[in-house]
Amino acid sequence: MSYDVFFVSSNKHKFEEVEKIVSKFGLKLGLLKLHLQEIQAGDLEDIAKHKAIHAFSLCSKPVIVEDAGLFIKSLHGFPGPYSSYVFDTIGNDGILKLLDVKRDAIFKSVIAYCERSGVVHLFGASVSGIISRKKYGTKWGFDPIFIPRGKNKPYSKLAEKNQISHRYLALEKFSNWYLNKKKSNDL
Amino acid sequence: MSYDVFFVSSNKHKFEEVEKIVSKFGLKLGLLKLHLQEIQAGDLEDIAKHKAIHAFSLCSKPVIVEDAGLFIKSLHGFPGPYSSYVFDTIGNDGILKLLDVKRDAIFKSVIAYCERSGVVHLFGASVSGIISRKKYGTKWGFDPIFIPRGKNKPYSKLAEKNQISHRYLALEKFSNWYLNKKKSNDL
Repeated sequence: MSYDVFFVSSNKHKFEEVEKIVSKFGLKLGLLKLHLQEIQAGDLEDIAKHKAIHAFSLCSKPVIVEDAGLFIKSLHGFPGPYSSYVFDTIGNDGILKLLDVKRDAIFKSVIAYCERSGVVHLFGASVSGIISRKKYGTKWGFDPIFIPRGKNKPYSKLAEKNQISHRYLALEKFSNWYLNKKKSNDL
Repeated sequence: MSYDVFFVSSNKHKFEEVEKIVSKFGLKLGLLKLHLQEIQAGDLEDIAKHKAIHAFSLCSKPVIVEDAGLFIKSLHGFPGPYSSYVFDTIGNDGILKLLDVKRDAIFKSVIAYCERSGVVHLFGASVSGIISRKKYGTKWGFDPIFIPRGKNKPYSKLAEKNQISHRYLALEKFSNWYLNKKKSNDL
């Protein structure tokens, strides 16, 4: 089987979710487990871009990396670019302890694609919402506490999550762009 | 005035504290404000090393960088290498909200010195203690909530802080090593 693009990650939950989404667009996604250097930066774009360049330099294949972050307004954007570290340490229980009445948050996703040294294409999307008062279920990441605007349940309890999420919206942009590019090259 | 070493930082509080400490050892410390790329890594050593190499590549002068982190045991080491970001977002009030009875913590400091491409010398120290039940004063960083073992007040209220802190102990190691090296070269 030949893959269109390789997804670089050490998080198998994320790969499974991403693979499910892009396969619906007709993309064949391989998984590459690489230990990537991650920079500390204020925005996801810089982190994703840096990781994609690093990944391509290691494997010389077309790669995407995804960086997502939960930005909570009353906490000055915390945990933001460090969402993964914060999830692994204080977790959803920690986030709930930190909040009182102000619970607005934005979930962002950035996809960085690299198939040629030094050239990176970025695709981003964000979904506004609020942090719930308690955890719903035990699903990976902040899904059990993030309720997207217009819904009354968190991601973890929404059957349609993978058709409305920040990650879906960013992957949709990338997939459409990639498939158009592939078509043009095929002509 | 000629400097022995340049301290690379964008945090003037930190520079003032470090300068006060090393001047007692007889070291002349200059300040270089550079925007350094910071990696996300599990340990301070890797972050400091990477920053020192980057700083030297930008200025070609003998440089030190310092990376410090507060590692809280019951929070799996949080905020650890992301202490500065966590201080800027959830602050000391956030840390206090996250804790209950288990309050053990370690404050670590790592100094990385680079005066030649690719060669980095590391000097580290740590101080054990507990997180106080409330904030004491408004001093910069986690000083208002960290009580070193054997003391009954946090760093912010200890007149002798700069003779006992994790930062002092790491700088003492570096200064002794540097002055010995200088002496040997002078002979």
